Amino acid sequence: MKELLEKILSETYDLRKEGKVASYIPELAKADSDKMGICIVNADGECFAGDYGERFTMQSVVKPVILLLALMDRGMDAVRSLVGVEATGKPFDAFNYSDQALKEDHINPMINTGAIALCTLIEGENYNEKFDRLLNLARKMADNPELSLDENVYLSEKATGNKNRALAYMLKAYGMIEDDVESVVDCYFKACSIKVDSVDLAKIAYVLSNKGVNTKTGERLFSEDYARFVNAVLTTSGMYDGSGEFAINVGIPAKSGVGGGIMGVVPGKMGIGIYSPALDKKGNSVAGVKAMEALSRKLDLSIF
Amino acid sequence: MKELLEKILSETYDLRKEGKVASYIPELAKADSDKMGICIVNADGECFAGDYGERFTMQSVVKPVILLLALMDRGMDAVRSLVGVEATGKPFDAFNYSDQALKEDHINPMINTGAIALCTLIEGENYNEKFDRLLNLARKMADNPELSLDENVYLSEKATGNKNRALAYMLKAYGMIEDDVESVVDCYFKACSIKVDSVDLAKIAYVLSNKGVNTKTGERLFSEDYARFVNAVLTTSGMYDGSGEFAINVGIPAKSGVGGGIMGVVPGKMGIGIYSPALDKKGNSVAGVKAMEALSRKLDLSIF
Amino acid sequence: MKELLEKILSETYDLRKEGKVASYIPELAKADSDKMGICIVNADGECFAGDYGERFTMQSVVKPVILLLALMDRGMDAVRSLVGVEATGKPFDAFNYSDQALKEDHINPMINTGAIALCTLIEGENYNEKFDRLLNLARKMADNPELSLDENVYLSEKATGNKNRALAYMLKAYGMIEDDVESVVDCYFKACSIKVDSVDLAKIAYVLSNKGVNTKTGERLFSEDYARFVNAVLTTSGMYDGSGEFAINVGIPAKSGVGGGIMGVVPGKMGIGIYSPALDKKGNSVAGVKAMEALSRKLDLSIF
Amino acid sequence: MKELLEKILSETYDLRKEGKVASYIPELAKADSDKMGICIVNADGECFAGDYGERFTMQSVVKPVILLLALMDRGMDAVRSLVGVEATGKPFDAFNYSDQALKEDHINPMINTGAIALCTLIEGENYNEKFDRLLNLARKMADNPELSLDENVYLSEKATGNKNRALAYMLKAYGMIEDDVESVVDCYFKACSIKVDSVDLAKIAYVLSNKGVNTKTGERLFSEDYARFVNAVLTTSGMYDGSGEFAINVGIPAKSGVGGGIMGVVPGKMGIGIYSPALDKKGNSVAGVKAMEALSRKLDLSIF
Repeated sequence: MKELLEKILSETYDLRKEGKVASYIPELAKADSDKMGICIVNADGECFAGDYGERFTMQSVVKPVILLLALMDRGMDAVRSLVGVEATGKPFDAFNYSDQALKEDHINPMINTGAIALCTLIEGENYNEKFDRLLNLARKMADNPELSLDENVYLSEKATGNKNRALAYMLKAYGMIEDDVESVVDCYFKACSIKVDSVDLAKIAYVLSNKGVNTKTGERLFSEDYARFVNAVLTTSGMYDGSGEFAINVGIPAKSGVGGGIMGVVPGKMGIGIYSPALDKKGNSVAGVKAMEALSRKLDLSIF
Repeated sequence: MKELLEKILSETYDLRKEGKVASYIPELAKADSDKMGICIVNADGECFAGDYGERFTMQSVVKPVILLLALMDRGMDAVRSLVGVEATGKPFDAFNYSDQALKEDHINPMINTGAIALCTLIEGENYNEKFDRLLNLARKMADNPELSLDENVYLSEKATGNKNRALAYMLKAYGMIEDDVESVVDCYFKACSIKVDSVDLAKIAYVLSNKGVNTKTGERLFSEDYARFVNAVLTTSGMYDGSGEFAINVGIPAKSGVGGGIMGVVPGKMGIGIYSPALDKKGNSVAGVKAMEALSRKLDLSIF
Repeated sequence: MKELLEKILSETYDLRKEGKVASYIPELAKADSDKMGICIVNADGECFAGDYGERFTMQSVVKPVILLLALMDRGMDAVRSLVGVEATGKPFDAFNYSDQALKEDHINPMINTGAIALCTLIEGENYNEKFDRLLNLARKMADNPELSLDENVYLSEKATGNKNRALAYMLKAYGMIEDDVESVVDCYFKACSIKVDSVDLAKIAYVLSNKGVNTKTGERLFSEDYARFVNAVLTTSGMYDGSGEFAINVGIPAKSGVGGGIMGVVPGKMGIGIYSPALDKKGNSVAGVKAMEALSRKLDLSIF
Repeated sequence: MKELLEKILSETYDLRKEGKVASYIPELAKADSDKMGICIVNADGECFAGDYGERFTMQSVVKPVILLLALMDRGMDAVRSLVGVEATGKPFDAFNYSDQALKEDHINPMINTGAIALCTLIEGENYNEKFDRLLNLARKMADNPELSLDENVYLSEKATGNKNRALAYMLKAYGMIEDDVESVVDCYFKACSIKVDSVDLAKIAYVLSNKGVNTKTGERLFSEDYARFVNAVLTTSGMYDGSGEFAINVGIPAKSGVGGGIMGVVPGKMGIGIYSPALDKKGNSVAGVKAMEALSRKLDLSIF
């Protein structure tokens, strides 16, 4: 298996040159585009290759964790009355929602607007507490109590995140959130800035693939229904407006982030974490997507 | 199993009252909303309940068959250069595509515009021949040489299908199709008017679930890649703009039509056909969707 | 005055090099971009300069004439229940209207969809008769019984006008028109292909500036209310999505066409016709717009 | 003339019952919908009727004053590089601008986004100073040094103006404004909350009708070009997405506000101020619009 992973890395590594490291958050532009790592976790344990220990911020990969915690804290109905689950056909930071879309069709939890809205459903006295509970869930899923905030990325997001502030005020204007906007987006900026490596992502994905159970301890972290909810949303909307393409070519529920990470959930089988920070135009890791595709073909992982 | 199907029918049958039979094509309005049938096909054979022999027109359920034939006749690249695979977040007969969407992002094959465009890729001297080849593929997949056109529905579609004509002229204006528009939409109207019953749908779905192989004869009708392509597209876009919801609640690649049919593809396991013509606002059979959900839960069919 | 016109021509003539002759209708591409003519008509008579006798097709300049005839034949209410008068912020041949826009806000008569819809309101046994009545009104307004169809442009429009067919089928799908689409667009293609020169345009405009009266004969061709209606619509929407800019810089109700003509209506004062076929990106004559601006400044013609 | 104004008031007064006082800003909901006032100012002096001294906040009627001051402070080019002048076909507080619209076509100064952006162009050390300069221009134009802020409305706007905050953060995200968002919108909230009566509006309009000159003192407050700019924009976009309708029925450059005021500019002739706070769905005073129409017809004021 390790051989396979190394072969896949070597075959897809050059593709990084076709992409670009995210630059709209200045701190992200510092990522080293020559790093690439991969890790898979299954019943046999972990297997990794390349720069699997290279750390990066979760960015949008944290969205399914936010969704999970909102589901765990408030249940299906509360979540569904705030966000929708239909693909939008729009980029992740799009503004141009019609009034009708905002009022009736809700907002997808895999785009910024939806994820920001869901932060308000997390339980906690205040937004520091909400974030701590989110970080804690990520740590538990990754089985890594060391997961922590990347201060520099967080401050960089906070300094430049005006589009997210605009989206949050739009939510507030439509009565979809009530709390102080700056506190809400601060929580979201922190969530995006949680530092992980490929192994962490693979482990988080593995819990989702096991429908909520930590197989090592046997502990159930969340219900099977919530796992299916998240895995379905990852399939229809996890790879931004490249989700349809990814479903056809790879066939694995997955979430990418502009930090360069991709997390793949193979239901009942495997969790996958890949890192390569050079992105395509839609915001997905170029080499990472191709590595996922190769892995899916070699190991016959497509759910379709 | 038959008992289970009957139980599911009886539990979901009343939901038909919450929907309405399609009326925008006059002939469709004649459907008897009290009919409901279900059929599943798996390695053990067929099992059915209710009005499983009640016949109805495929309508949009024919879209995956059109997509398959276009793939078989012209290959992946030709199809992908004409249609896209991203969900659009729009209704199936939407006009309001920006120029950019039409030129760059293509058109999803599960909405009318995409399906009409794909009719032009089917091989054949003329559009009668193209339609005959399509009907033939449907017959082969359904293992039913009797499948035929519903003349009345076809003529009703032809008489009232001005929205589809508008979409086709739009495609022509953008250079996406070259043939005579009336011939192209005539083929599409005929395709939508192929008459099937729940058993036919289940069998067509079963071939898709077996990645292209007719398990009875062992004959491969199309490649595994094409089957995965179609199953993925069904998951992200098969249930109109209710596809996200369906993925979460049911988790089965599926296609519905305004004739009241739903075809479900459980990869590697099962084909499902359901009929109940009362539709929800998005155009999906109300009772049919709930029956699919019940079946998925009882038999643990979700792919997620 | 003639001197002034010649000075304006010579000062704006070079701007034609910044534009391009329309090419989406092949026959239009044959226009000679080196021709430029201007004519003004006021109480003192006519005055012209340059290639004022060069003939070209009206294209969109015919839209106000269609609107006038629909008003004259059916009255204000019938027209207003079919078309709206708000600017759309969209190009003249845009598709992407939401259902709501089509149903509630109507369609502006200065864009293709609205003009096509208005053709159905013109009285006449059939569409040949409707067109003849339209040509007749144009002849009367231009005081030129020789106005006629440019056969070649008409056939070229007919052969390539699929976008207009798409728009017309969209109107039919929404129940906004009932007649045979091909007949309706045929009438519209003919209307666009009426051949005029700058003098004709200036005279047509002069009738509008006189609120419907042919000042030579004293004959009232249409009511003052209809003239104001048209002049107002020209101001808000006559220069495509460059109407706002034109209002500020020129301040004269005007209509341009992709044939290269611009017709300017100075209420109570003057009619203006300009020809120069090289167009800017929005479809307005580059040199023509600048000549209008110069004329407005020199003669203080702005209505604002 | 006074008789005419009183007749018009009495004939249109009942129409207030078809509208509703604005309620989205709580403080505005307190307006007395039974008040109605009108004032005209021309070379003969002032003439008024009804509750002409009833005071209300300018709301959007302040937008042309903001535009004027930005023009006066920074000139045409700076203004034009920040805002556009095309009608948008959208409501005044719309979000759904595509990226392209924001980047290329700019934002109309008569909608919130454009007016907020223009606040940043006003000269001043800080936003208090910018507002003071704006208030000062309004006082000068109204020839009323008593014009002042309605504290309660201002605080109510500030407390509930999240949509404007969202729009401002969107501007900041696109690099169209640089200053602190809260300071910018605070200035805009104050601008909207300037208290006037019908006489003030008529006088402000009269300066615009005189192309920038205070006829009493002979002082030129701003250039003729700026006056034409504003008057043109009022015509194409001053009455929200009812501007086209208003141009046809009334034919007077005008601006309305959700406070219930309408300001009409009859170029070269007259300034008009009307107050009646019950609004139609587009945000225009129902009785006010009809009174404007009656006045235009009786006095032949249409510019078309």
